[in-house]
Amino acid sequence: MKDNVVIANSREIEPHVLDSDEVKGVTKRVLIGRSSGATNFFMRLFSLEPGGYSPLHRHSWEHEVFIVSGEVTVVTEEGVKIAKEGASVFVPGNALHQFRNETSQSVEFICVVPSSGEE
Amino acid sequence: MKDNVVIANSREIEPHVLDSDEVKGVTKRVLIGRSSGATNFFMRLFSLEPGGYSPLHRHSWEHEVFIVSGEVTVVTEEGVKIAKEGASVFVPGNALHQFRNETSQSVEFICVVPSSGEE
Repeated sequence: MKDNVVIANSREIEPHVLDSDEVKGVTKRVLIGRSSGATNFFMRLFSLEPGGYSPLHRHSWEHEVFIVSGEVTVVTEEGVKIAKEGASVFVPGNALHQFRNETSQSVEFICVVPSSGEE
Repeated sequence: MKDNVVIANSREIEPHVLDSDEVKGVTKRVLIGRSSGATNFFMRLFSLEPGGYSPLHRHSWEHEVFIVSGEVTVVTEEGVKIAKEGASVFVPGNALHQFRNETSQSVEFICVVPSSGEE
């Protein structure tokens, strides 16, 4: 089946709620990963509740992000930037970054990473 | 600037209208490409007008797709499949595929490819 086209409804994919000192109000769904047959890069969908945030961190791999709905505050070494619905965000390897939802609406974004960047 | 986080508003990115015998009613925007500093994989946004379609073809590289709005008809070797808003589509390397808009509404989807798959 690994040579077949695989369609997945994101609503039917198991959500992983992330909650720790470093990350709050974040739900992650792996849309395209190893089990889809992908080997090179993986696609994840993240939801951030109002007030939610991802870790403020840096790592060797890049992120390629597309804001599906809502508005994301992106913390970077060069300051805080706003990414609205329909915007893309490229986070190069080793760049400091954090995604925050500072609005009263839920936010959804796609984040694609090399397979080495997804457990 | 290549080590910086790059945010782009998709509405401000130059559209490329694709029109030939093999492709109709398709607009492509490269959201994250070489000029953003990406080297590994690239993110493009496609719009399909009602009746529009991408080529029916196969190639060595994979596609990782997310349907942002509307409903896409995906032609595959295993038959025709429907991908609705919020769905992901994984097209493995060498799999036959075509994306068609058989609805009366415009469709938008993200398509991520390895850099070797984008001119």
